[in-house]
Amino acid sequence: MPVLSKSAQSLRPSVFATLAERMKQLPADHLPLHIGDTFRLPPEASRLESIDWAPLAPLYKYTHPFGLAPFLEVLLEKVKSKNQIPAEPVCLQVSCGATGGLASAASTLFDPGDEVLVLAPFWPLIVGILRTAGAEPHQVQFSNHLLADPDFDIEAHLEAHCGSATRGLYFSNPNNPDGLVYTPEQLERVASFCRRKGLWVLSDEAYEDYIYDGRPHTSIAALPGMFERTVTVFTFSKSYAMAGLRLGYVVAPPEVSPALRRVSNHQIYNLSGAVQHAGMLAVQTGAEFLEESKRLYAPARDVLHQATAKYGHKPGGGGYVFLDLGSEEESWDFIHRAMDRGLCSAPGEAFGHDYKHCVRICFTAAPLEGIQRAATLLGELL
Amino acid sequence: MPVLSKSAQSLRPSVFATLAERMKQLPADHLPLHIGDTFRLPPEASRLESIDWAPLAPLYKYTHPFGLAPFLEVLLEKVKSKNQIPAEPVCLQVSCGATGGLASAASTLFDPGDEVLVLAPFWPLIVGILRTAGAEPHQVQFSNHLLADPDFDIEAHLEAHCGSATRGLYFSNPNNPDGLVYTPEQLERVASFCRRKGLWVLSDEAYEDYIYDGRPHTSIAALPGMFERTVTVFTFSKSYAMAGLRLGYVVAPPEVSPALRRVSNHQIYNLSGAVQHAGMLAVQTGAEFLEESKRLYAPARDVLHQATAKYGHKPGGGGYVFLDLGSEEESWDFIHRAMDRGLCSAPGEAFGHDYKHCVRICFTAAPLEGIQRAATLLGELL
Repeated sequence: MPVLSKSAQSLRPSVFATLAERMKQLPADHLPLHIGDTFRLPPEASRLESIDWAPLAPLYKYTHPFGLAPFLEVLLEKVKSKNQIPAEPVCLQVSCGATGGLASAASTLFDPGDEVLVLAPFWPLIVGILRTAGAEPHQVQFSNHLLADPDFDIEAHLEAHCGSATRGLYFSNPNNPDGLVYTPEQLERVASFCRRKGLWVLSDEAYEDYIYDGRPHTSIAALPGMFERTVTVFTFSKSYAMAGLRLGYVVAPPEVSPALRRVSNHQIYNLSGAVQHAGMLAVQTGAEFLEESKRLYAPARDVLHQATAKYGHKPGGGGYVFLDLGSEEESWDFIHRAMDRGLCSAPGEAFGHDYKHCVRICFTAAPLEGIQRAATLLGELL
Repeated sequence: MPVLSKSAQSLRPSVFATLAERMKQLPADHLPLHIGDTFRLPPEASRLESIDWAPLAPLYKYTHPFGLAPFLEVLLEKVKSKNQIPAEPVCLQVSCGATGGLASAASTLFDPGDEVLVLAPFWPLIVGILRTAGAEPHQVQFSNHLLADPDFDIEAHLEAHCGSATRGLYFSNPNNPDGLVYTPEQLERVASFCRRKGLWVLSDEAYEDYIYDGRPHTSIAALPGMFERTVTVFTFSKSYAMAGLRLGYVVAPPEVSPALRRVSNHQIYNLSGAVQHAGMLAVQTGAEFLEESKRLYAPARDVLHQATAKYGHKPGGGGYVFLDLGSEEESWDFIHRAMDRGLCSAPGEAFGHDYKHCVRICFTAAPLEGIQRAATLLGELL
């Protein structure tokens, strides 16, 4: 057999795959808090069964590779007004979730040999997404420093990790897994560093609508001098509970977007028009849905944090508590003991090589009763 | 601004994009025969409006990255019985159309610097798909030789194009744009060459169900010693008239599939479960639909071929006539004159640098009345 590509060889099986077999044996009422998902259904008008599909038959024909025109208009308005990103129509591209958007962005921006700073702990898939594009992720312990010390010197820390091959920086805000919501001042320090070093920024804002305590979301691309070097990725997976439909979108500066659109065109051709139609209805009807999500998730966050406060910060956003259990052994021991009781959690090693002593637990993947049950279990297990 | 990746820079705007502005000005009854699509709607039971979505709510949650389990079972049975490919369950991966499947395959198999023989004339997107993966397409004039001379020495011809960097070979069967249906003997010569040279084979079988005159379809992966080196890509776009929904699947040998699944996981995470559900219903109910397509498309092929017989072979499969108009000037002159009359066709340069004197016209994108109208127009234009 000929050999596989180096990039494909560099992708390791997901740590979740190793847990999959055990999960099959769990009782039906187990708590699937290892994944980032929600127990909610999408806004009613945007559900597949609510949509009058018959008049939309052209959705079976190829739709525009950039996205359906009316959907792009809706997204542009949202990105300009809500995110304050100075986008133009040329800047948008729909994507197969945030994953697809980041995959297109990585191929557009990075060559083999390029290094990308990945602020850790991080969303597990980003490492493989960068490697598939040939780039090398360079993990930088980050948000745990910011959570521990508000005066942490962000620029000096990033500087120490930046080398001659560094071409970009990836981070998520709010951060998955630890729920850090960057303050505008912290964002500006990251931005300043990237401007000074001439880096691309990949801003993963999948959790923009999961921020609690009345705090606002700030997009780094809205800061001065940042849009021109930032590719921002949004998704319907979290905001509108549509993870399985696979819908996201990318906002890139006008100098980047035409290239990114060509890459996307060669990765998926177009995104399913039916899925885009559902998404358009979600944005158009979902304002109250987004507020309701916060009202539902904030108490779940409180419950789970209270049961685990000794081991981690209270997340300002996102859908998880990220717990420091002290050692890799203890985290795996905990994961298996918790699974014996029907509680699934995610091993810290998925979020960076410095986090093997950690565990991530989702508070949005089950209704409040389930999270309360998880909190009781955690009281016994920890 | 930092620089874009070399691979992104190597992607050129589609030649279709240059025609897009003019097409906007065409009357509503224009004939869109420049694209590869169908006028048919998908099998009735598989249409979005026919499906009872309410009980399928888990489709909003992440579905399995490989594909929905019952759908994969249906596909495996099809691939084994219809295509005679000795696949196992591990060999299948659903994809965002054939495009997505080929994008995953290219990233799995090829490194930057690798060359891939692309049998020309070819499906336009393959060049950019290979380049996005960093590989370099090497165009080989091919199916026109086979159509002109049944005794053409396939292996010697391929040998002359094979260099030290050659790692793979891409071809489509039936071939887009010229409708060549490879005979088992021709396929075996291609196979023999690839076995001898240790090449990967990317077999694009998007048109497997568009073969006329009672001829069978043969998958190269079904030939002895070929499955282990062949990644075969199928799609619902043509077979089931579902191009806009974006559904395809990849069959890779067991030594390749786990890596390809990881790449796909990092390109799209999972494919929309809703789309897969529609696809499953299409396979389960669509046998008669596939036969009916042939009965509808074969007369359309005859009509369009008769009107253009002086300029091209009668296609044995696929959805196009591919016409040799003698020079690049004449082909562009024809395209613009045809567009003046409301008939859209595709410029030959999209299908390889040796085909600038050609034009491709689709006979499945409009019902027979439209194709007859096109034939009349062609009689006046050519």
